[in-house]
Amino acid sequence: MKKSFGAKTLIYPAPVWCVGTFDAQDKPNVMTIAWGGICCSTPPCVTVSLREATYTYGNLMARKAYTLSVPTEKYVKEVDYFGIVSGRNENKFEKTGLTPVKSEIIDAPYVKEFPMILECKVIHHYKIGLHTHFIGEILDVKVDEGMLDDTGNPDIEAIKPIIFSPAVQRYHGIGPFLGKAFSIGKQLHTSF
Amino acid sequence: MKKSFGAKTLIYPAPVWCVGTFDAQDKPNVMTIAWGGICCSTPPCVTVSLREATYTYGNLMARKAYTLSVPTEKYVKEVDYFGIVSGRNENKFEKTGLTPVKSEIIDAPYVKEFPMILECKVIHHYKIGLHTHFIGEILDVKVDEGMLDDTGNPDIEAIKPIIFSPAVQRYHGIGPFLGKAFSIGKQLHTSF
Repeated sequence: MKKSFGAKTLIYPAPVWCVGTFDAQDKPNVMTIAWGGICCSTPPCVTVSLREATYTYGNLMARKAYTLSVPTEKYVKEVDYFGIVSGRNENKFEKTGLTPVKSEIIDAPYVKEFPMILECKVIHHYKIGLHTHFIGEILDVKVDEGMLDDTGNPDIEAIKPIIFSPAVQRYHGIGPFLGKAFSIGKQLHTSF
Repeated sequence: MKKSFGAKTLIYPAPVWCVGTFDAQDKPNVMTIAWGGICCSTPPCVTVSLREATYTYGNLMARKAYTLSVPTEKYVKEVDYFGIVSGRNENKFEKTGLTPVKSEIIDAPYVKEFPMILECKVIHHYKIGLHTHFIGEILDVKVDEGMLDDTGNPDIEAIKPIIFSPAVQRYHGIGPFLGKAFSIGKQLHTSF
């Protein structure tokens, strides 16, 4: 039997990403989000959804650019802090000692210590309800050279991204390798 | 140093969800996606992005409803198969032996064996490029009663959702508990 939870933002897994923006005084800010995901392959795009009340919302509307820094689990406390406090009241980079780096291709900063960075320009936004939905075109992805696998691709087991559970509000790490996509299902397919 | 990968849909983690729809003959279909995410808290909404070439795209445009079934890792081969084959050519439920259940509140089927189900009606769609972006309002979330924690909430360690790595195309399971969100960052905050 399945238990009904009603109309809720309850789905597993949700990502944990940090949105980097500049404010009107060019102060770098960073905010943790879980409401987002890839939304198009060509052009490559990723969404983030923000409440109008957030400092990042105003920055994003003004500058039309943001980074997504993918944190590694070592920094889970800093990441949680980035989601609790507003950049309107505190300089979150100064408080945590993490380093803002100005992107060379878009008008936004990223978190140097985080292993995977996406640099995005806003190409569309849409107010859904409490949240406004921003579609960002991904102009570049940068990954720490020490976190690549034998084939030169980003290694998720080295990067150790953080997983969020909405509603219960818990963070988890990445688990064991389960199989190769677009591959293990073929075995099933041909065996039918 | 960070290595540049260019403009790519490369970000960790991405989800693995199965989109359930009916076709024009009321045949249930299911397709695996990784391009999606929560996009609004009120009303609760989740996005999925689809290429026009997919069978699910046509179903979704016609019926304006879909389910998201969150698979558990036990079914990773079936899930991969759901992403390889088109419902235009095969009845994926029959081929895998998994069970379609018609939702009682929206015009779409879900996968009975999967532990977490979202029932969604399309409230907006937007063609970005190769993919069209659908925003679905979540009308209900259903979770297997055997997969709840002591507080009655869905237990991610029991549900065992699947994580996708774009570009390298690999599946992983969920890893260790790292901390409580909106909580562990407060410790840092007060210690500054």
